Amino acid sequence: MSAIKEKSLKYNLHSWSAQGAIDPTVITKAEGIYFWDEDGKKYYDMSAQLVNSNLGHGNKAIVNAIKEQADKIPFIGPGFSLDVRSDAAEAIVEASGLKGAKVFFTNAGAESNENAIKMAKQYTGRWKIFSMYRCYHGSSAGAGMLTGEPRHFANEPGPAGFVKYDGPYAYRAPKACKFENEDDVADFYLELLTNQVKYEGPESIAAIFMESVVGSNGILIPPAKYVKGVRELCTKYGILLVCDEVMAGWYRTGTCFAFQQFEIEPDLITFAKGCTCGYVPLGGVIACEKIAKYFDDHKMMCGLTYSAHPIGCAAAVATLNEYKNLNIADNVAKQGKVLGQLLEDLKEKHACVGEVRYIGLFSAFELVKDKQTREPIVAFNEDPQGLMNKIIGMLKKEGFYTYSHENMIIVAPPLIITEEELREAMGILDRVMDSVDNMIK
Amino acid sequence: MSAIKEKSLKYNLHSWSAQGAIDPTVITKAEGIYFWDEDGKKYYDMSAQLVNSNLGHGNKAIVNAIKEQADKIPFIGPGFSLDVRSDAAEAIVEASGLKGAKVFFTNAGAESNENAIKMAKQYTGRWKIFSMYRCYHGSSAGAGMLTGEPRHFANEPGPAGFVKYDGPYAYRAPKACKFENEDDVADFYLELLTNQVKYEGPESIAAIFMESVVGSNGILIPPAKYVKGVRELCTKYGILLVCDEVMAGWYRTGTCFAFQQFEIEPDLITFAKGCTCGYVPLGGVIACEKIAKYFDDHKMMCGLTYSAHPIGCAAAVATLNEYKNLNIADNVAKQGKVLGQLLEDLKEKHACVGEVRYIGLFSAFELVKDKQTREPIVAFNEDPQGLMNKIIGMLKKEGFYTYSHENMIIVAPPLIITEEELREAMGILDRVMDSVDNMIK
Repeated sequence: MSAIKEKSLKYNLHSWSAQGAIDPTVITKAEGIYFWDEDGKKYYDMSAQLVNSNLGHGNKAIVNAIKEQADKIPFIGPGFSLDVRSDAAEAIVEASGLKGAKVFFTNAGAESNENAIKMAKQYTGRWKIFSMYRCYHGSSAGAGMLTGEPRHFANEPGPAGFVKYDGPYAYRAPKACKFENEDDVADFYLELLTNQVKYEGPESIAAIFMESVVGSNGILIPPAKYVKGVRELCTKYGILLVCDEVMAGWYRTGTCFAFQQFEIEPDLITFAKGCTCGYVPLGGVIACEKIAKYFDDHKMMCGLTYSAHPIGCAAAVATLNEYKNLNIADNVAKQGKVLGQLLEDLKEKHACVGEVRYIGLFSAFELVKDKQTREPIVAFNEDPQGLMNKIIGMLKKEGFYTYSHENMIIVAPPLIITEEELREAMGILDRVMDSVDNMIK
Repeated sequence: MSAIKEKSLKYNLHSWSAQGAIDPTVITKAEGIYFWDEDGKKYYDMSAQLVNSNLGHGNKAIVNAIKEQADKIPFIGPGFSLDVRSDAAEAIVEASGLKGAKVFFTNAGAESNENAIKMAKQYTGRWKIFSMYRCYHGSSAGAGMLTGEPRHFANEPGPAGFVKYDGPYAYRAPKACKFENEDDVADFYLELLTNQVKYEGPESIAAIFMESVVGSNGILIPPAKYVKGVRELCTKYGILLVCDEVMAGWYRTGTCFAFQQFEIEPDLITFAKGCTCGYVPLGGVIACEKIAKYFDDHKMMCGLTYSAHPIGCAAAVATLNEYKNLNIADNVAKQGKVLGQLLEDLKEKHACVGEVRYIGLFSAFELVKDKQTREPIVAFNEDPQGLMNKIIGMLKKEGFYTYSHENMIIVAPPLIITEEELREAMGILDRVMDSVDNMIK
């Protein structure tokens, strides 16, 4: 074992793990869509790390912005104005398309959602917060209560007033549901939500949170009619619509923000990850004009030492420029089509691939024991044999790096990927799925 | 108004403020213990920003470490090992003196406390959490519920099980209390806490949180006997002692961590701020050996995208080295004595200065209307005329930058301050207090 790994196991506590069961790979180099371990082995980064390294590794424009800001003013308290703080906020508001909006900066996605909760409660004077089952919004006490999957169990008992609803997931809708088309899916889930809003009392509901496209829980893409319906429901009852764009934002789905695909405007937008590609921690909340104006004469009860961190803001300005300079939206549109076709081929060919879902370069597929019954390869929140870890390990061994969630595998490479690289990587995936087909025989 | 400020007011939401009431100073340069605004005005940074810029501004060693890491690997997911991650964790564990401890890295202080709550609940299987009135631990849903001052009101209704206790504060102890010495103070507050632990049921209490020295709420320094007593109480009942060293840590009080002054060992230590001097966001939780070992075969339900951020870890390694290279502990000991004497002089001279409290370069003083009655210059959580803001503004006008809390003014300069600089800055403070004396006449 190398000295770095030995020291890591001795001194570091690693996320979401029993520490005795892990064997963390030591990384020594990263460039473009690739990274290398200490043995010189090269990996295709097919999840852009945690779906945040949108421009891949070693982007010079972001690196240079970090270095310049470090030389200039690496830190100054959040109470002060600073050129990069103003510039980053302006660029982000413009990217959102929300006229008159303002940005409150945080360190990352969980904190963004924490502050969106506080803003929504303060603005509305209401106390209930809706969020979806099968979603992830972070793991701190508030963001964790938004989260609708097992990682939030550790946050309980949590604050009162957090209510979960079922979002669109046609592939695993209740068996009684007969859907002819996307509109049917939208109608069903809208009916469920509308009822639940009534049952809970609309006048007590501050906000409905949704990942514009659900990310880690398996790229669940809502029908546009559904998103529009939720927007109307919110408007009707004075409930704020909060779109979590932490993972789906920053061109992952093709548009800068995913909500822009559905022709709606949220009241609050939370973001992080792709705004700096993770080179420096940064996140934030975009508040629409009416909420921003409310805080003109109401003290906003949000604050943190590193709000609008200078190096983070400098990295954000560079990252947003780079998205434009590199025509990232065009590449996502182009490679997104290729990825979609390759995933459809994968589903066609492999017994183990039950469904594929994709939008832009944001995709996932479900591993099943049986395509007819749709029985997942591992049951919900149960994988006693560590089967999914084994499959992820097989992919990793072949140089295809990504992660899984339940029975699903995420494919979300850096947005700079070329068609050639995409086809090479997906070739590896195809071969490993041959082995998985054999496992379920 | 400059373009930068105009843009800031148009696009940025600023912490803890009604946005219409602020006039954020634009900063264009920072060096050593000074920073400059866009008009070229120079300020003594007498709070080290938010008590985090311990090595002042523009420290080359930290800046170079950031630049080198940005060139090498600015980001890689937290599941991987990386040289700087291992090195930062090793250096931090060694600084703590806790044999066999491990570190879980976060972005900042609030997140560190969020994760310490989760670890304590998971390790003990208990659900109640004690923390002090007049303390600050952050503003997210969990950390905010630890916080024992008005900034936590916005977090309510919060998770159940958060219980507040009164910590040592001799100057404003209940009127019936007759203290002859520090031991009497310790005994009184220990009796209160011991009773409260019994009333709440020790077997349901996961942890007792304390800022080792209370920071923003006015540098409340506990008697050593009190801290030892809390440690014994925790040990007796299997309650974890969590020392929040976010502000007090990293040589602020003279020792690396403030708890080291009291000859005790906490079970969990939360830290942030000074570990990178804020040049890059970084925080963490140090878990003592028994808790670290517990997570060998129990899945630790903590995780975040930017855990052990490479640039943050690189900055931490450089910062910790710099504390040693610059003999910061020696300078704090030396200048701390000077500061203490200057504060005693201030109290002696000014009618408005009711009490001064100091340890190392961590100090505060209370403004009063009357030294005999100790009546604060503004009542608790009431300052309708914005008197404290006015006084802070008077100091700022003279080039003395710091912040206030309730009726208290914080003095906590960068730890690199020289005696000459300290005397100059305190001279400004002295002159402004003449004006405050006149205000209360």
